[in-house]
Amino acid sequence: MKTAQRLGNLGTETSFRVAQDAAEWKARGNEVYPFHLGDLNFPMAPHIVEAMDKAIRDGKTGYCPGPGIPELRAALADDIGKRRGVTIDPAEVVVTTGGKPVITKFLQVVMDPGDGVLYPSPGFPIYESQIEYLGGNALPYRYVPTADGFAIDLDHLRASIDDKTVAIIYNDLQNPISAESTEAEREAIAAIAQEFDLWVLSDEAYFEMRYKGRSKSIAALEGMRERTVILYTFSKKFAMTGSRLGCAVAPREIAEVISTLNTNDESCTTHYVQWAGIAALQGPQDEVGRMLEVLRKRRDATCSIINSIPGMSVAVPGSTFYVFPDVTEAMEAKGIATLSEFSTEALHNTGVSFCTREHFGRRQDWEDRSYIRLAYSGIGENDITEGLGKLRDWLAQG
Amino acid sequence: MKTAQRLGNLGTETSFRVAQDAAEWKARGNEVYPFHLGDLNFPMAPHIVEAMDKAIRDGKTGYCPGPGIPELRAALADDIGKRRGVTIDPAEVVVTTGGKPVITKFLQVVMDPGDGVLYPSPGFPIYESQIEYLGGNALPYRYVPTADGFAIDLDHLRASIDDKTVAIIYNDLQNPISAESTEAEREAIAAIAQEFDLWVLSDEAYFEMRYKGRSKSIAALEGMRERTVILYTFSKKFAMTGSRLGCAVAPREIAEVISTLNTNDESCTTHYVQWAGIAALQGPQDEVGRMLEVLRKRRDATCSIINSIPGMSVAVPGSTFYVFPDVTEAMEAKGIATLSEFSTEALHNTGVSFCTREHFGRRQDWEDRSYIRLAYSGIGENDITEGLGKLRDWLAQG
Repeated sequence: MKTAQRLGNLGTETSFRVAQDAAEWKARGNEVYPFHLGDLNFPMAPHIVEAMDKAIRDGKTGYCPGPGIPELRAALADDIGKRRGVTIDPAEVVVTTGGKPVITKFLQVVMDPGDGVLYPSPGFPIYESQIEYLGGNALPYRYVPTADGFAIDLDHLRASIDDKTVAIIYNDLQNPISAESTEAEREAIAAIAQEFDLWVLSDEAYFEMRYKGRSKSIAALEGMRERTVILYTFSKKFAMTGSRLGCAVAPREIAEVISTLNTNDESCTTHYVQWAGIAALQGPQDEVGRMLEVLRKRRDATCSIINSIPGMSVAVPGSTFYVFPDVTEAMEAKGIATLSEFSTEALHNTGVSFCTREHFGRRQDWEDRSYIRLAYSGIGENDITEGLGKLRDWLAQG
Repeated sequence: MKTAQRLGNLGTETSFRVAQDAAEWKARGNEVYPFHLGDLNFPMAPHIVEAMDKAIRDGKTGYCPGPGIPELRAALADDIGKRRGVTIDPAEVVVTTGGKPVITKFLQVVMDPGDGVLYPSPGFPIYESQIEYLGGNALPYRYVPTADGFAIDLDHLRASIDDKTVAIIYNDLQNPISAESTEAEREAIAAIAQEFDLWVLSDEAYFEMRYKGRSKSIAALEGMRERTVILYTFSKKFAMTGSRLGCAVAPREIAEVISTLNTNDESCTTHYVQWAGIAALQGPQDEVGRMLEVLRKRRDATCSIINSIPGMSVAVPGSTFYVFPDVTEAMEAKGIATLSEFSTEALHNTGVSFCTREHFGRRQDWEDRSYIRLAYSGIGENDITEGLGKLRDWLAQG
């Protein structure tokens, strides 16, 4: 029987395949060091769980409003606004089942078939998938390596814009490459958005996953609030990935449409989980600090070993929980031609499991270096040292 | 700034407006009798809540697979299969955030823009909204009153099919009208689906909300499994509307696409809530029976008073928790021309709040009778008697 043609344009997250390969290798009795997970091996804080239980006891188990319960919308408006230095009205906040739904809902609201949307490449793979699934023209923009990370190639980005371009997806504190904008770069993106009248999806999933200083939001720059939708999530900061709780912060008329999409798509986000979200925002924050301290040590251990491996190098990122080392020379020295082969060989020879550039959108024809992504959010410091030590030894074998 | 043209085809559930009107009337100090809610005023069973807490304690707080955890998929395949007399493979089950997402995901998978989809009118309003939002041609089919309820006008339905028609949405145990197919009608729908090679979405949200006997699924009829997607939900049977847990049961290749849509749209359904779902399916079922017994008494009280009101009549439904009385003569006697005016006047004169036919898809030009929908799932027996008594008195005033 016939299925819809649009399915031919649907992509996905291929990194799940990496997890499957790792699980199969482990099931065969091998040690596996899981650097592939974008998940956190930390528990939800007890006060968050208790708030959820209280909500259930209080009968918060029925339907609730499509845009979220008013108490959570107010708490989010307050917290997100304060941390970004902007004033947010609760009517501009729409609760969603995690941060991810904001991607497809943003695109559904601002993009017609044939319209162009700029997105980071490499980048979170759902950007490319949803732009193309919804009939848009996916316009990748690229990063160039710098002394301390990566920078957006602004000239190239600007040259990709034409009169059908309607939006840019901007993921400062970037997954997978951990790029972070300078103030100048953020201002340049804002200026381009205003010059060409573009909507901006500011994916701020990692806004608070940083090891010193404070993040800044493009939404706080002049003239940006009215064209920016912020993607916010509880997943990382509060180790609540499995709770599926996030929100969009959007100009009011956009927020109202996203709310209507919620009513169509899933009625509402799980009611009692929203009460847990209020406790996460307003309760004690010491678990957040403790987790960041553990992650910082893991980052340092990871980068230190990576940079001790001949043919691999990475700048130490100030945020996210990923590193994106250039492994071009290490692959050459080993006589390995493709990232796919490299990751399979690494898994089978050392147990180290990771994603590569290939899992983050299509590779572009201008790319001539090879990168892998190591996530240190789901693996302890000892295993980091042990696993990457084995990776170093294997590569040293020539 | 420009937004997408597709938004012009997006509908919604307008019944939320009724809830808002009722809340405002109540806030002004008036008694309100809430017959508008499609929600249940029953708690989640303690063993379901405990299973969720245990899952959180056991660390089931991270991401889980897009199609759901294997244990829940297996439990659903077993339970749904047994109750319908079919064998279901867990690979045919995809967990979703409630039953509602199955509507849009089914349509995304089987319908191209310009294709026709048959849907019940009056019916759950999201059918019409999503068919049209996704660019399809919404083909309403109609019901005719019978001695004990409503029957589908099969000749009219058949005459609506052309070579662009790809699917039929079938909601046996129907919201809002509580229609229930005879075996002959169910077989006729199945025969039409096979004759015209149509996909079937069998919305079985109310499959177990029945007061005697057992429901049957069109998926169990010969030749239907391979063309049918079942919409299943925990919402009604287990009073878990706010938990947002349901699933699609679909031919394997369709299940795989729905799983990919999950990965794109929301990653997965809340992890620990899925463990609560297993407890709901496999734990003690006495709460389900107790709730149905309470609902049966409410149904009887509702129907008894409705049928004592001059100009109103309804057949006693054997399932769902709605009644859909014909109020044409009652409105005429009161000199009220529109359902909108009738519901507003009823609220302001008696406090009785209800939805009408207008909240369940567009009214069609063949309709010459007026109906309202009373839900007795969220209001106790005493309030039913008191509220509908006031409605009767107000109508008797002429």
